[in-house]
Amino acid sequence: MDLKAYLKEQCARVDAALDSYLPRETELPHSLHKAMRYSVFAGGKRVRPILMLAACQAVGGDTEVAIPAACAMEMIHTYSLIHDDLPAMDDDDFRRGNPTNHKVFGEAVAILAGDALLTEAFKLLSNPACAAGVPSEARLAVIHQIASCAGSHGMVGGQVVDMESEGKSDIDLPTVQYIHTHKTGALIKAAVVAGALLGGADREKLAAITRYGSAAGLAFQIADDILDIEGTTEEIGKDAGSDQARGKATYPAVMGLAAAKQEATTMMDEAFKALEIFGSEADPLREIARYIVTRKK
Amino acid sequence: MDLKAYLKEQCARVDAALDSYLPRETELPHSLHKAMRYSVFAGGKRVRPILMLAACQAVGGDTEVAIPAACAMEMIHTYSLIHDDLPAMDDDDFRRGNPTNHKVFGEAVAILAGDALLTEAFKLLSNPACAAGVPSEARLAVIHQIASCAGSHGMVGGQVVDMESEGKSDIDLPTVQYIHTHKTGALIKAAVVAGALLGGADREKLAAITRYGSAAGLAFQIADDILDIEGTTEEIGKDAGSDQARGKATYPAVMGLAAAKQEATTMMDEAFKALEIFGSEADPLREIARYIVTRKK
Repeated sequence: MDLKAYLKEQCARVDAALDSYLPRETELPHSLHKAMRYSVFAGGKRVRPILMLAACQAVGGDTEVAIPAACAMEMIHTYSLIHDDLPAMDDDDFRRGNPTNHKVFGEAVAILAGDALLTEAFKLLSNPACAAGVPSEARLAVIHQIASCAGSHGMVGGQVVDMESEGKSDIDLPTVQYIHTHKTGALIKAAVVAGALLGGADREKLAAITRYGSAAGLAFQIADDILDIEGTTEEIGKDAGSDQARGKATYPAVMGLAAAKQEATTMMDEAFKALEIFGSEADPLREIARYIVTRKK
Repeated sequence: MDLKAYLKEQCARVDAALDSYLPRETELPHSLHKAMRYSVFAGGKRVRPILMLAACQAVGGDTEVAIPAACAMEMIHTYSLIHDDLPAMDDDDFRRGNPTNHKVFGEAVAILAGDALLTEAFKLLSNPACAAGVPSEARLAVIHQIASCAGSHGMVGGQVVDMESEGKSDIDLPTVQYIHTHKTGALIKAAVVAGALLGGADREKLAAITRYGSAAGLAFQIADDILDIEGTTEEIGKDAGSDQARGKATYPAVMGLAAAKQEATTMMDEAFKALEIFGSEADPLREIARYIVTRKK
């Protein structure tokens, strides 16, 4: 399959849907809706939404029913980036080459835009007009899965440990594993599990997709750590080497660059293995796993 | 009925349930869970959860099924207080006489504790073990109602306009109405509507409860504005007169104290009127409406 064309096509579907679901800038309060849209449309690759659609397809589902949930996932991802960039957190002035939300709209509106995006995600997930034809029980399960992976035992928990580990010299592998599987991995796992649930997966398929999600999620973050070292500032849209400069807990930092690369490949292989029960309908998931580890930005 | 005893009893039920639903401080990350619990158990009156239980009772439902949603509502309320108090927002050092979350745990953890509480609320609302016996469609409707009222067209929207109006000399009544009905009113309305939905209300009862919620929500915030002027610092747990000192958009500021008091009473009467179709099963809702306007803190 032509992954580039596939990603472009799915990205356009997600972008169009996000545009239709997000409140307009003309709606009150203008500044808030402007700030929400600014970060949602700041050049994200839509990895999580596309993974959700690909997982839905892999289990034989109609990807159309997963579009609202895919958008909700991107809103949650975006909120997390806005809050991570705040002065009290990572204090980043740029993301993907653009000024961060609080640099444009101020800290207060940035905090509230993040809050509103997180809330909007759950509004969309519970919207009766969305996911038509999907049983209500499955929709509740999707909400529960996403909330569980985004909260204190998931993404937010990972961010806290990441922050608390910054600059410490004695960070061990289990801590980095905790950070990566929670801060990034949890939401990626939630994306594919939700896609499988919306696609009507049976127990066996759901288990396989869950294993894929865990492996791909970890691979994604290790690859990100490696990119921070090997990528150029232009490629990755932020200062290259910034993790190291900050004393961030990363795979290369605790196990060395070569071992980290090996680990990323191992995770990619695990992701492939989890998909063995599927035929060509899981090709997008396979190609995305490969892309996650080999991408240059 | 003995309102004081009723409030105390319901408050204890909500507190016990909150304690059982919130992650323990012994769970990772400790600092995050400690911060979440700190603000949830900082002496809140549980007005929103109790209103939800009372609405459930008014429509003839079993209040036990509304307990998890009532706790979710308090988590959302608490997250909003934590974020409102941040230096970038209202910059408050004290709330209910205690140091605010960011003064104890730092800004970063305070932001993340708010994020996690908001997320935890939706995790609880979608938990398959909660609201047993309630149809899944009603549970989705509850989630949608709460998310709608908490987001950019509800509470968060109200907070943005409140902030943007601060210190401006030309704030008009429609703006103050927007702030109050959104920032405070929306969540109070969501609480009673959710309670009615969980209690199995028919269309007529749901409409009556919705009208009650709109009136009671507005009455609550006007009463709050008046308390800020007439209450002592000790009674209200924060600096008395702080709204005026900050140039906050309030009812007394735009229409004068006497007219604001009249408006609060009018809203209370509207709340009573909305309950006319109910018998004594709505007495808690009636007494709470009276309490909202006459309370001294």
